[in-house]
Parts: sequence; structure tokens; C-alpha cells
Amino acid sequence: MNIGILGLGTVGGGVVNVLSKNRASIFARTGEEINIVQAAVKSLDEEIICPTADFDLTENALAVVNNAEVEVVLELIGGTTFAKDLVETAIKNGKHVITANKALIATHGNQLLALAKSHKVHLLFEAAVAGGIPILKALEQGLSANKIEWIAGIINGTGNFILSEMRDKGRDFADVLAEAQDLGYAEADPTFDVEGTDAAHKLAILASMAFGSELAFSSVSTEGISKISGEDVAFATEMGYFIKHLGVTKKIGEAVEMRVCPTLIPKTQLLANVDGVMNAVMIKGNAVGPTLYYGAGAGSEATASAVIADLVDIIKGTLSPDTFGWQALEPISKQNPDEVQSVFYLALLVADKPGVLAEITKTLAKYNISIEQVLQKPAGNNANISIITNRVKMGILQAAIGQIEAQNFNQESVKIIFVEMLN
Amino acid sequence: MNIGILGLGTVGGGVVNVLSKNRASIFARTGEEINIVQAAVKSLDEEIICPTADFDLTENALAVVNNAEVEVVLELIGGTTFAKDLVETAIKNGKHVITANKALIATHGNQLLALAKSHKVHLLFEAAVAGGIPILKALEQGLSANKIEWIAGIINGTGNFILSEMRDKGRDFADVLAEAQDLGYAEADPTFDVEGTDAAHKLAILASMAFGSELAFSSVSTEGISKISGEDVAFATEMGYFIKHLGVTKKIGEAVEMRVCPTLIPKTQLLANVDGVMNAVMIKGNAVGPTLYYGAGAGSEATASAVIADLVDIIKGTLSPDTFGWQALEPISKQNPDEVQSVFYLALLVADKPGVLAEITKTLAKYNISIEQVLQKPAGNNANISIITNRVKMGILQAAIGQIEAQNFNQESVKIIFVEMLN
Repeated sequence: MNIGILGLGTVGGGVVNVLSKNRASIFARTGEEINIVQAAVKSLDEEIICPTADFDLTENALAVVNNAEVEVVLELIGGTTFAKDLVETAIKNGKHVITANKALIATHGNQLLALAKSHKVHLLFEAAVAGGIPILKALEQGLSANKIEWIAGIINGTGNFILSEMRDKGRDFADVLAEAQDLGYAEADPTFDVEGTDAAHKLAILASMAFGSELAFSSVSTEGISKISGEDVAFATEMGYFIKHLGVTKKIGEAVEMRVCPTLIPKTQLLANVDGVMNAVMIKGNAVGPTLYYGAGAGSEATASAVIADLVDIIKGTLSPDTFGWQALEPISKQNPDEVQSVFYLALLVADKPGVLAEITKTLAKYNISIEQVLQKPAGNNANISIITNRVKMGILQAAIGQIEAQNFNQESVKIIFVEMLN
Repeated sequence: MNIGILGLGTVGGGVVNVLSKNRASIFARTGEEINIVQAAVKSLDEEIICPTADFDLTENALAVVNNAEVEVVLELIGGTTFAKDLVETAIKNGKHVITANKALIATHGNQLLALAKSHKVHLLFEAAVAGGIPILKALEQGLSANKIEWIAGIINGTGNFILSEMRDKGRDFADVLAEAQDLGYAEADPTFDVEGTDAAHKLAILASMAFGSELAFSSVSTEGISKISGEDVAFATEMGYFIKHLGVTKKIGEAVEMRVCPTLIPKTQLLANVDGVMNAVMIKGNAVGPTLYYGAGAGSEATASAVIADLVDIIKGTLSPDTFGWQALEPISKQNPDEVQSVFYLALLVADKPGVLAEITKTLAKYNISIEQVLQKPAGNNANISIITNRVKMGILQAAIGQIEAQNFNQESVKIIFVEMLN
């Protein structure tokens, strides 16, 4: 099988290295040699992490996708402009495409997948979600007997590293972020990681695989972790929860809810104990119950592992021509945010004077919102109050919070954070 | 697709129920109706957990495997005698076979898989290992780019329930076992679960999938959990470890180690926090690093989920004709037990008199065995001593223990338990 590679950075270089070191065992599976014909890099002067002597190296990425010898193109450049052109050209040239590019699939996947289908080639992207964890194959094949009820995933390692450090070492967000940047986990512009865009790309892909719906990245509500304070982390822990930056998607009737936001989950849940840069995705099927998949969400050879698994599937001819394993994809029907039901964690900073807690709890009661736990601690002349509610609709909660915020004892606006029990 | 079912007990009944409740979503994947033609039960008088009006019900299992209309046979009876005859007949009749029968595959799999290959039909058994967790598909496809270094799995829910209860509630083995039997987790004859035979069947299958080797159930060393005392559990916890009944397989050079035994693992490992009847399998690939797969290892619909996933693969035609995804299986070369290297936990009950600990540590030092941790506590007129060693070969450790046991201060023989760091 002749392949062409676009990009020899962390992932592309990893692919070349893994194909080399595991050549014998991969051959024992496929019965066919994998031959790298050509690879494109941005500049021939850049440092490359893999040997390049055995294939043609070029700065002309178009040469690779137009190379008549190349049967499968690995798009490992990233971005949604030039990468899109290259993928389209490769498909139109009748080549299979494997990509690790979550942004490209989440934003242009419907069109690209339709193009691939019409040209009878595969467009595969196991590496785009949760790196080396074979989560898309699990959804497409392993859980195919199930109606998926929900998915909850830690799908951005940088955000998880920051929250783990904040909890374990009582450190501040900004401080840990700076360290993550030094360690190379976070980009110089960290918004992509910590504001949830990266996780939202992956969540959109997971939701489509799970529910057989078209990709709908713009329907994902996204909230970052920069609003999480050390107090939130400490209070949540004391109340029995860890805070994770979670991607959550649920099917409620015909509607699909998709959100990436800080979320409290019970400490006793396995997912709560996934720390540092590791990723994990929990999937609830209506037959199998809860399942969880854990591993490295990024990194050179971990991501390469997923890219090459797709390649092996192509060589072995074990792929369905169906998109995501479904005969046809339905348009997604977005859940009305006001109708979203959940348990919530509320964090208030209030003046420390008599009657404040009474006023808050009275207002919640008026809206029929039950309280599961309350924790109050002094904060200088003020008080931190954290409340965990019972299940309530977001629209009703926001009305109640609006009325609480209209009172003059609030020192800042009330923070609302989702709580997922994961059962 | 016309199917025939052998056995409508917990698993078979679950398959019928899941096919019924998820008919629309399974059809949306396959584009083909699944039609149950005939099902065999032991006795038409027995209680059945699923509706049976839509298919022919018989007490004659041979009728199902000889039924010309049936294209796929689901063998959900269990056992290795009658079930083996039925599976052989079905294969010889040109029918695909799906089974949840780990004992059958572990003990007769080489022959049955060869038979299936020669008749150009599939013999599938995702449900045989870790119930609903799609672990075999992960090994065959998702991790195909990797050389697998090791697998460590909690693959018997009953044993894990017992050890979890002993740790969390300070209960005795016998007491929890009796409860597990009452709850229906453990068989009336519990040796299959607690002595590790069931886990050994599953481990043999995992090892073959991972390493591309023939099934070698008889090469699995198996040790049960009945030797684990409340003291062991408490001491291990204090030293930073939880005790799990682990199936472990490793590739060391060309040799394969396979063992099912009580094992200490660091509390901080995700696998250590898999409690109750849940299963989890950790797999270390040389590219992806450590990954973990968690879910229900048994139960009616969870197991049915795996059976039907295999069925969907057959209908979609996405299966390789290769056994376990390998072009050819190699005979297994068993690791010499004396050469097995590991960290170990030693538990001694000794007379409480001067010089005992000195004598023990001197003997270990003589064999060049370093000590990582020691914990000593009084036990009446005696003392419990627990030691965690550094990495040492089993043969050397046993020589040292032999010399220690020759001393007259021992009140019982020294307990040796594997410690796996899982990194």
C-alpha cells in the first residue's frame, strides 16, 4: 500500500517512527508492506523527528495529493483552509484520506464525508478524537447494538492537567496555565484548549457517531475553565465532587444536547479520577450500561497509533462504506437550552449579614428548586456560599438566579456549574 | 439476516430483548432486518425472560444448527461438550457462529477457529471476554499499530466484588462470598470464579488476540483469592496498594507470561479504582502507551450488546477472514516461571521475639533482594510482617523464602503476592 504524508511534525513524524519500529507486527496483521512514497513538509530546513531517507521529501503538498502512486493520503498538517483544499483534492483524485484534524472534520466534515462517499473512498479520523484511544471504532462497531444515551468525556489534556494541579496543589489557574505552556502542553495562545474549542470539535464528532446525526459543531455550547477559582475546586472537593472540563452530549427524545463546560462529577466515579493530561470518554448505552475508555489524548506515537489503525483497516478492507457506520445521517435537532435538565452547583459571594442564606433558599424554594447540599465559609467581610441543587431545568434555575442577583447582598454574579452524576 | 439462537437464558434472553428494543437503531446501521428463525431451550416448561411468539421454539438444539434457513447461530448455552458439538455442526453447515462461551473458546478455540476458516465462516466471541466491553475489537482493530507489551485485567466481577467489600467494609472472604452467592453473582460452586478458572479462560483469549499466538489456556498459572486475608487487604492499603484479582499477560522477548492471581496495584492507578462487579482491562501498547477499557463484565443486556455487535459486523461485511486479525497464529512459547520478574508483596506471621526481622532482611539481602517497604504489627503473641520488594526473579525470591521458612520463628508459610506498578 502506497501512502503519502502531509506534515512530518509531532503526529506525522510519529507515524513514520511507529511504521518503522512496528513494521513486522503490522505486516503480520496486514500481509502487505506499507510504502511511504512521498511526504510534504513546510520547509525542508525544519527539524524533523523521523528518518526521511526512504521516501521523497517535498515542500509541495499538492504534489503528494496529485501523486499517481499514492493510494492513501495522511493529512497531518492541521488547520481548516489549506488542509481542506488538500483533502478535497486527494478525495477527488480517488485517494483514501486519514486525518487527525478535528477542526477540519468538525467544521467541514459533512461536506468532506459526502465528497468521499461520492468518490467511493474512505475519509477516516480515529486520531481526531481522544488521540490514541480507539473511541470512534468503539462507537461505530463495539457498541453498535446500543442506543447511546449520553457521552461524557475528558477530551482536552491541557484543561485536565490544569484542573488536576489546581485541586491537588491548591494552585491558581493562571499559575498552572503558565506551567502548562512551559511544558509544551498548552499553546502560546491557550484559548483553544482552555476555552473549550478543541473539546467542542471532538464532542461534535462523538455526538454524530453516537446518534447518527450530521456534524453540528456550531450547536455545541462552550464554556472554558478560566472562571473556575481555587474556592470552587476546594468547595466541590469538600462536597464530594471533582471539577472536570467535560464534553457532554445527550439524546433527549429527538433532540441532542452538546456542551463543553466545567462540570462537577462525584469523586467515586472512575472518570473523576482521570488526572493530568490523560483523556477518557464515558459512554452510556441502553444495553451495555456505562463503559469508559481511557488513554493518551495527544502525543506523537499515541496519535500515530490511531492514524495507523485506520490505515490497517483500509488495507484489510474491513470498513463499511457507510458514514460513521450509519446508512444515512439525520440533521441534528438541538435541545432548547432552557429545557436542559441537570443538577447544578451554584457559587455565590455575598455580604456576611443576617438573613442572606434565608433569602437565597427562600427564592430557590419559590421556584421549586430543592437543595442537596450547602456549604458556607467566611471570605473576609463576605461569605462564600456553595449550593448543590436537585435536578432542575436551566430556564427555571436562571429565573431564580436572576431574582437572587437582584438582591443587594451579592458581591459578584452567581456562578452556575453543571453537576453530572454519570449514572 | 436469519439467525438461530441456542439458549434463551440470561444472555440469550437478553439478545432477544435488545434486538427488540433497539430494532430501529440497529436497522439504521445495517439496513437489513434481523430475523430470529428458531431458538432452542433446554425445556419448553422453563421460565423465559424474553418474548418468544415471533419465532419457532424447540427443545432440539440440533434442529437449529441444521435449519437450512439459519445463516448465523448464536451459541449461548455454555459448557464445552454439547456446545462444542453444536458449534462444529453449525460451522460444517456453513453457518457463522457467535458465542459468549469463554470456556469453549479457551479450550477448543484453535480447532474451532481452524474449522471455521476452512468453511469460510466467522466464529466470533466478543461477549466471551469482559462482557459488554468491546475489548477484542479494540485489540484487533483499534490498537493494530502497536506491539502489545502487557495486559492487566479485572475480568471476573464476582472476585472483584468480594475484594472490594473486604477492603471497604473490613469483611471476611467467606462472609462476602456467601453474600455474593445470595445476590446471584457467584455460582453455588464458586471455585470457577474465586479460584480464577473463569478469568484464566478470558486471559488466554486476550493473550492470543494481543500477541497473535495460538490459544494456550493450559499455560495460564492460576491462583484464587481465597488465600487473601483481611490483614493482607488492610496492610496493602496502608502501604498504598489495593489488592485485585488480576489476569496479567506479558510478552517478554518471544515468551508469553500468563497468570491469574491476587495482585497489589498502586491505589493511584485507575484500574485500582474499579470496584464491585465491574470489569476493566488495561492494555499497554508500545505506541499508544497505557489504555483502559471499563464496563459491565456480565449481565443480560450488557453481554447481549457484545453478541449483537458481532452480528452487526457480520451483516455489514466488515470482518477480516483472518483469525484474531492476524495472517497466521504462532505457537505460544511459555515464559519460564522462575524467570518471571516482578515486585512482590510478602506476608509473614512470625513469633514476636528479638532478631526475627533482622534475620528476614539479612536473608533477603543475601539473595540481593532490595526492600521497598516494611510494615510490622502485633498479632497476639505473634507479629504480622508485610514486605514489598524491589523487582526480582521469582526463582531467586523462592530460594530466599525457602531459607526464611526453614527458620523456626515462622507460624505459617510465607505468602507471596505479585505487585504490578502498571507503568
